[in-house]
Amino acid sequence: MTFTLTEDRLVETMRTQATIGGTENGGLHRLALSDEDREVRDWFMAQMEAAGLETRVDEFGNMFGRRAGADPDADPVLVGSHLDSQPYGGIYDGALGVVAALELVRELNDRDITTERPVEIVNWTNEEGSRFQPAMQGSGVWAGAHDIEAEYAKTDVDGTALGDELERIGYRGDVPAEPREAYDAYLELHVEQGPYLEEWGSDVGVVTGIVGFVWGATTFHGEADHSGPTPMHYREDALVAAADVIGGVRRIPGTLGERTVGTVGYMDVSPNSINVIPDEVTFTWGFRDPDPSVLDEAKARVLHECEAAAEREGVDWEWEDRMRVDPVHFADRCVDAVEDTATGLGYDASRIFSGAGHDATHANAVCDTAMVFAVSEDGKSHNEDEYTSWADCYRAANTVAGAALELAGRAD
Amino acid sequence: MTFTLTEDRLVETMRTQATIGGTENGGLHRLALSDEDREVRDWFMAQMEAAGLETRVDEFGNMFGRRAGADPDADPVLVGSHLDSQPYGGIYDGALGVVAALELVRELNDRDITTERPVEIVNWTNEEGSRFQPAMQGSGVWAGAHDIEAEYAKTDVDGTALGDELERIGYRGDVPAEPREAYDAYLELHVEQGPYLEEWGSDVGVVTGIVGFVWGATTFHGEADHSGPTPMHYREDALVAAADVIGGVRRIPGTLGERTVGTVGYMDVSPNSINVIPDEVTFTWGFRDPDPSVLDEAKARVLHECEAAAEREGVDWEWEDRMRVDPVHFADRCVDAVEDTATGLGYDASRIFSGAGHDATHANAVCDTAMVFAVSEDGKSHNEDEYTSWADCYRAANTVAGAALELAGRAD
Repeated sequence: MTFTLTEDRLVETMRTQATIGGTENGGLHRLALSDEDREVRDWFMAQMEAAGLETRVDEFGNMFGRRAGADPDADPVLVGSHLDSQPYGGIYDGALGVVAALELVRELNDRDITTERPVEIVNWTNEEGSRFQPAMQGSGVWAGAHDIEAEYAKTDVDGTALGDELERIGYRGDVPAEPREAYDAYLELHVEQGPYLEEWGSDVGVVTGIVGFVWGATTFHGEADHSGPTPMHYREDALVAAADVIGGVRRIPGTLGERTVGTVGYMDVSPNSINVIPDEVTFTWGFRDPDPSVLDEAKARVLHECEAAAEREGVDWEWEDRMRVDPVHFADRCVDAVEDTATGLGYDASRIFSGAGHDATHANAVCDTAMVFAVSEDGKSHNEDEYTSWADCYRAANTVAGAALELAGRAD
Repeated sequence: MTFTLTEDRLVETMRTQATIGGTENGGLHRLALSDEDREVRDWFMAQMEAAGLETRVDEFGNMFGRRAGADPDADPVLVGSHLDSQPYGGIYDGALGVVAALELVRELNDRDITTERPVEIVNWTNEEGSRFQPAMQGSGVWAGAHDIEAEYAKTDVDGTALGDELERIGYRGDVPAEPREAYDAYLELHVEQGPYLEEWGSDVGVVTGIVGFVWGATTFHGEADHSGPTPMHYREDALVAAADVIGGVRRIPGTLGERTVGTVGYMDVSPNSINVIPDEVTFTWGFRDPDPSVLDEAKARVLHECEAAAEREGVDWEWEDRMRVDPVHFADRCVDAVEDTATGLGYDASRIFSGAGHDATHANAVCDTAMVFAVSEDGKSHNEDEYTSWADCYRAANTVAGAALELAGRAD
């Protein structure tokens, strides 16, 4: 017998969470540890309690709810995502993954299904990283990637410390922010945030891993001369050199791989005056790819572009590493469970590599992991135009729920 | 008998003015209508009074001092420049032109020379345009290019109105800011701010005109997607389009003329985040050339580059005019007077077109005008590294003084 969720209730729960921090344009403004985050956490805690889960909040605010299994010694299956949003983001993003986890335990309750392994659901703290950096912070602390004291001390633009905000909203819990025991598996549903599933005509995405990325920043140092009397051949224009490299970052992915992307997102120009040749320009560059050797090659090529641009324009340059995260490849058994479930439900499922980072990156360091992607219309995310149809939400939620049930095992 | 200034006194006067607002790195920080500007104005007024000049300050703070001529009905010859500086600018810039004018009347006094025409010296208000815009403001009001009430209302970054600052420092005078009568000629000495005189091995520059310029701004509108999951072929990256055009602005002058220059000096990137594809980029572009048809062509080409870049990247775009000033060609008789004087003093004088705007642009609308350029080492200006040797200062000052005397005529 196939296991599916109750569609009307899934939609209703999605609509309910979307009212907390909802924007007038149909989006969501629910920054980590804000009043809206507290409100949605209170709501989520009440739902977990009502579903009879054994709840706990860890010292970093990660919220867990456990549904017991037949075998109390078995390693649990963990399912979840995050309820925080980008500034004026969309209502689906990570919230769909938390709602699907909640609907999973509700459905198990309704059907009176006992699993072999315990099933735990989770809402991670601050996945977005827009108010406090870095992104995926709660799962990172939990998985041991970050020191909790260092993360407590992080401040937002107003200088408010994260630890204080956790206290203020009442979610600095009393359980250590670490895996309480061994976990059998972690499953996460998230919207794709890219256009591939829609382009391929797929119903749902079976995520096999997460691309790695390499970030750096380059600064060119030229001469800030008057834009009038300085002949072109006397100029050392830092902005011209930077523009050369921006063109290079646009070209490099097309020379490396079909999934390679490269972006210059940030740029600072000095003195930034209409009448002065720019003497100092700093900009960031970043590349993502499923293959770590492609990241190495992309970085080597952008540095080569910087060197060539500096030489051509006669400017000095320097660069620094900003961050590097290696690609993640999920465990076959979890990926297979997701794929078998989707196929068993009659869905057209496509294997896909995630182009964005997710809490699953950190969970993968703790236990076998996989993800499910819901179709993102036009690939839009992190803005109010983000959209996934209820039918696509339902298919993806059924997929993660069914895979979790398969991994947890039926006791009856 | 050749007429030359007293070199030691010229250097001493230059050094004295450089102490008012002088910086620890040997530069000058004397913004228009600041306390330092008041101090240097007080000093200049005292020097004019001591030289026996009939002084006046007009309603816009332009300071004049007249030395009577033999013919009280003759149109005067006006000589001067400006004492204000860029933030952390150089000590020569316009100050050398005002000091040379002062030394001219001192030397006429010392030698007891009576001129046919009156000789007036002038310090124009706010030539630099860094605290209050536009540049060349005082001469512009005087020549009727700007409405005085509109210019009084201009504010600095602190919101302080120019008119109030003129009052505060005591230089909102009682004489109308307009030519009191017809002028025979205006002469101005300024440092070149470019490298040509040094490159040519010239002693002094005979300025035949001032390049015109055309300024505009372009905005590209793309899509602010997540830099990870958005494939390269889905992107509409406003910064990539802007980078294309910056490269175009670097190339265009080389296709137009040997004196054409083009600059992108200002750029604003939104949302300016390492992890988001830029969706809105605004930047300025500007071109200068002695030929107005070259300005037209440069503008047409940069707009063509914008259109091509927008099409290539799939972004929308718009643009706006910011400013256009046509080239100025000085009157032959004034240029000849400068050239004859320099040659008569044994200097290697080169005719040169000014790449920067000067108060002479506006004066040229009132009367016949010419300029003298002093050699700028390495072409540096508008920073503390600006340098002109005392020997070059002296040669240029002798040239403007001699030319003024030639135009004013000796009565004795």
